[in-house]
Amino acid sequence: MRARVYVTLKPSVFDPQGRVVADALLSLGYEDVKDVRQGKFFEVELDGGDPATAEARVTEMAEKLLANPVIESYRVELLRS
Amino acid sequence: MRARVYVTLKPSVFDPQGRVVADALLSLGYEDVKDVRQGKFFEVELDGGDPATAEARVTEMAEKLLANPVIESYRVELLRS
Repeated sequence: MRARVYVTLKPSVFDPQGRVVADALLSLGYEDVKDVRQGKFFEVELDGGDPATAEARVTEMAEKLLANPVIESYRVELLRS
Repeated sequence: MRARVYVTLKPSVFDPQGRVVADALLSLGYEDVKDVRQGKFFEVELDGGDPATAEARVTEMAEKLLANPVIESYRVELLRS
């Protein structure tokens, strides 16, 4: 069973990495770029095949380790495999 | 128009960040974790509304700046907004 956890800074939190990437794109001539936000994701491979259990466990991992709920939000997605 | 670019290390490239996260999860008691790979994504907001043009431009940005095609692969996804 595989799952992905997508982690992004909350919209109210300033994203300096995204800002730098946006500036770099502008300086490369992509003047239609209005904003860039950067995030990360984790692809977790688990033993055991029950989707509901897997989703619950991965959500717990996101809360405890993968995301910082104070400034980040996350989304868990199960992959059919 | 918004698009997301997902960037991951190619499967043959060692992912030390993912390894550290997997070890941390194991030490937290998640013994069913077999592997973790980490990736990043960019959410790009563009002026202009034509989806085909936007997709082509964002793919070009990924090739030039957002991903390193030697060791990373990427996927572009347009968001309906």
